Amino acid sequence: MKKLWLVYVLLIGIFIVYVLNYKLQAQSTEPWDTTGLRGNIEDTYVMVTFQSGIDYWKSVLKGFEDGAEELNVSVEYHGSTQHDANEQMTVLEQVIAKKPAGIAISAVNSKLLTATINKAVESGIPVVLFDSGAPDSKAYSFLGTDNYNAGIEAARTMAELTDAKGAVAIVTTLDQHNHQERTDGFRDTITSEYPQMTVVALEDGRGDQVYSRQAAEWVLSQYPDLAGIFATESNGGIGVAEAVEAYKGKGSSPRIISFDTDKGTLDLVKEGTISATMAQGTWNMGYWSLMELFQLHRGLADEPSAYSHNELLPVPDKVDTGIDVVTRANVDQYYAQ
Amino acid sequence: MKKLWLVYVLLIGIFIVYVLNYKLQAQSTEPWDTTGLRGNIEDTYVMVTFQSGIDYWKSVLKGFEDGAEELNVSVEYHGSTQHDANEQMTVLEQVIAKKPAGIAISAVNSKLLTATINKAVESGIPVVLFDSGAPDSKAYSFLGTDNYNAGIEAARTMAELTDAKGAVAIVTTLDQHNHQERTDGFRDTITSEYPQMTVVALEDGRGDQVYSRQAAEWVLSQYPDLAGIFATESNGGIGVAEAVEAYKGKGSSPRIISFDTDKGTLDLVKEGTISATMAQGTWNMGYWSLMELFQLHRGLADEPSAYSHNELLPVPDKVDTGIDVVTRANVDQYYAQ
Repeated sequence: MKKLWLVYVLLIGIFIVYVLNYKLQAQSTEPWDTTGLRGNIEDTYVMVTFQSGIDYWKSVLKGFEDGAEELNVSVEYHGSTQHDANEQMTVLEQVIAKKPAGIAISAVNSKLLTATINKAVESGIPVVLFDSGAPDSKAYSFLGTDNYNAGIEAARTMAELTDAKGAVAIVTTLDQHNHQERTDGFRDTITSEYPQMTVVALEDGRGDQVYSRQAAEWVLSQYPDLAGIFATESNGGIGVAEAVEAYKGKGSSPRIISFDTDKGTLDLVKEGTISATMAQGTWNMGYWSLMELFQLHRGLADEPSAYSHNELLPVPDKVDTGIDVVTRANVDQYYAQ
Repeated sequence: MKKLWLVYVLLIGIFIVYVLNYKLQAQSTEPWDTTGLRGNIEDTYVMVTFQSGIDYWKSVLKGFEDGAEELNVSVEYHGSTQHDANEQMTVLEQVIAKKPAGIAISAVNSKLLTATINKAVESGIPVVLFDSGAPDSKAYSFLGTDNYNAGIEAARTMAELTDAKGAVAIVTTLDQHNHQERTDGFRDTITSEYPQMTVVALEDGRGDQVYSRQAAEWVLSQYPDLAGIFATESNGGIGVAEAVEAYKGKGSSPRIISFDTDKGTLDLVKEGTISATMAQGTWNMGYWSLMELFQLHRGLADEPSAYSHNELLPVPDKVDTGIDVVTRANVDQYYAQ
């Protein structure tokens, strides 16, 4: 009896060992480790901005983090606290010194940052630019809003809001290139597509709420029948909204289109003072920056000089991250971002 | 003795079971199945082209397949055999009927294909367009060459080849929009950036080798001092090369810049008859199309109506897949594609 019991125990034991081992092997032959896009958690990808505390970057960072989580890599966020190229340059130097797996940077000043960006690329660190580019740098890609196209979208939205009739004005920031592009896209589209609309004024709001309010007040005093105002950035949009509110009952009630999705602007969209605001594809900027950097890092890890001649790059040259039109109808989903 | 032996066997058995089980659990808690981008091999992503047999698509398909392999999903390739919108529409209908996880399509005719593309999107299949778009369709994204920018690059390359001096000509295909954009980018850049260069002729080569040869012969007869010719597509480039070869010794030896990287063109670059050709980012078109479709498919799987208003899309609006300049110095790596 005892012997038989011993044999049973042995057979059962061997069977258990066999089953477990089989399960183990079955798992090992699953190709988890060879296919599936997955990086090394010790690889750190860094996002660098300026005015690093503002809300605008939050959704970009969320996209960057979402990508990193999916790919099992790490993320750090750095930036200059001010709108200051020298400060950002110092931050970038510090980031380069740590030899990260990749850097996504929004350049506060395209010219002043170019040399430091090139230094990163030359030392074998993949760099992509987002939101605000540095076209003459050696960075591999740019991901951001096509601002001329954003102006086109704003013009078409304005035409919908005004039945494609009447005088419209633009309040912009004259010395910033991206605002110039938004202005051009808006003006060119009104001129070419809407014969019953006219752009009657182009004012400098200097990216400032008070200046923009004053600019809008002046335009309203000159054109009491104004059908709409396009503000190319959000401080200006809030200033314009104040002017239009104060003007209520004194003339027309011009429709306002603003830019971006900070809380102040969204609140005004929700209450109807601003009819629409143009939301940039900020999550896309972060997510696809991470995807491109991951792709570049793998290539450079395989062959350190792979992209030295900027040829056959495995990432796009330029990514237009898109524009969404936010109105009262869909404003709620933008608060969550 | 026997009892002791039995105890040993039991202890060893329990120990082995414990170790194996521990290893098994350790593997299971590895986050392979929760992080890491990895799809389902049963999800099929379909690439649809026209003139499906031509070399041009090979590198696009390679990018599409590379992406699918990394993400553990399946790929099919379909297309009309001819340059025929009705045939491509039928192919697309058949693809839609199989309810694939996503479709990347290059539209032979943007207007005629729009309704069928919209049908796919409305039935919940993610669609992106590559190489040749359908801007008025509901497709989520376009990935392709910025042809105006390609013209700029060609102009700058021409300026390098000719020391930025002299008369240059363009041989193009007048009725195709992308060729018009290449022409405009080239002409605008020569005019604005190179005061000592002039575009003296713009000829229609009809995308045909013989017509392009004749066009180039005519230009050479009119401008014996011609410094260069830009052919906006590859058949034309080969025709122009024939004309210039036949003209040798009779006047100047104009530099030729062509487009694309088919074997005929690369051979002429290698032997020096064509000085440079503009390579499109075809691998990027395929790879990043797959990445975008994968991303869209996941979102729609989670929430079928997620992108019905085209808002907050998790993919870029437009991707410029880039342009590389191929010369004798780097021509060899383009044969491999």
